[in-house]
Amino acid sequence: MTGVFVSFEGVDGVGKTTQVERLRAYLEAQGREVVVTREPGGTPLGQAIRRMLLHGVEGSDVDGSADIAARAEALLFAADRAQHVAEVIRPALERGAVVITDRYLDSSLAYQAGGRELTAAEIRSLSMWATNDLLPARTYLLDMDPELSHSRLQHEADRMESAGDGFQSRTRQAFLDLATAEPDRFRVIDASESIGEVWNAIREDIDEVLAAAGPTGGAR
Amino acid sequence: MTGVFVSFEGVDGVGKTTQVERLRAYLEAQGREVVVTREPGGTPLGQAIRRMLLHGVEGSDVDGSADIAARAEALLFAADRAQHVAEVIRPALERGAVVITDRYLDSSLAYQAGGRELTAAEIRSLSMWATNDLLPARTYLLDMDPELSHSRLQHEADRMESAGDGFQSRTRQAFLDLATAEPDRFRVIDASESIGEVWNAIREDIDEVLAAAGPTGGAR
Repeated sequence: MTGVFVSFEGVDGVGKTTQVERLRAYLEAQGREVVVTREPGGTPLGQAIRRMLLHGVEGSDVDGSADIAARAEALLFAADRAQHVAEVIRPALERGAVVITDRYLDSSLAYQAGGRELTAAEIRSLSMWATNDLLPARTYLLDMDPELSHSRLQHEADRMESAGDGFQSRTRQAFLDLATAEPDRFRVIDASESIGEVWNAIREDIDEVLAAAGPTGGAR
Repeated sequence: MTGVFVSFEGVDGVGKTTQVERLRAYLEAQGREVVVTREPGGTPLGQAIRRMLLHGVEGSDVDGSADIAARAEALLFAADRAQHVAEVIRPALERGAVVITDRYLDSSLAYQAGGRELTAAEIRSLSMWATNDLLPARTYLLDMDPELSHSRLQHEADRMESAGDGFQSRTRQAFLDLATAEPDRFRVIDASESIGEVWNAIREDIDEVLAAAGPTGGAR
């Protein structure tokens, strides 16, 4: 594969969408093909899976994830990711594009493994199988105190947010632990800084990532 | 767990449904609680997953399994099984019921692993994780020459059937290989015999299975 694969991670409200769009504009201005995508729901199949996870099964008593067994939920997220990689990410990388995804495997580890019956090692192993071992060349973790990110959120509270600040704090810590475990892949960026300052940190780093990948890129 | 878990396997048209119902009647006449279930689609979530696999995603270009990546498909089948075990099978076994399922893990191995990009070992490992290692105490493989079973089928051809006799022959052989690999769990029954003769073979065996399980059963 000749493209470059980049993921953004972090709890809701830290500004991932804004920075993803800045990065897209920056790379397109250099004449690169850029594919921006997201999880969950980066494909039609993934969107259908996401609807089942959030809203349950129509015409049944299954009312969202409360009625979905932990292992079934983990397998559904993994199926979403498998389809996303096969349908969107790998073909784009094979064309030489830069693929930027808003959330990837680390979100599964930080959200699903925290406080449930499954271990992070199990979720990771499932996800690595689903993607045939595709990891980003770079993962930007936008990190911020949950109280700050919470106040930034404008849209309706969803399951993750309504779980409260204790949940957000644990998730933030889970992301930081993942970054510590893989310092070569992660860059932790202080998302409490201004949008411009956060972007400067990303821009300086992405130039290095692209240079290291060579003129035709190089995803792991 | 105090119940007994039994599965029926074999290609379409070998008479599984008929024998499952005979077994149910036989055990209920003994005063046992019997739960009859099936895969895929043994739960509302499983039915929703099955619809996606067979008919694709409504309002999108995804038109059934042709557009679903092999790993995503395997993960969706595993999610169906995980929910089936958590929602139906384990609770029934914990109550002491006999659970009879029309298809289980061996169908995934025989159908999904044959001629696709995934190995049987991968599918099996996924399924064992999905079920938290729940295997039937007994698996009845109803075995028959595909030409005979094909002529018995009355309902509309589905994907499996339309794949032709070469596919059915390979699937039959895959089932037989699974039975050879686990002789303690499997009983291979000649399904070309009359319904009464097939049932006699099952009845003689199930008495032993229940006796071995003890007065309150005992799933593996």
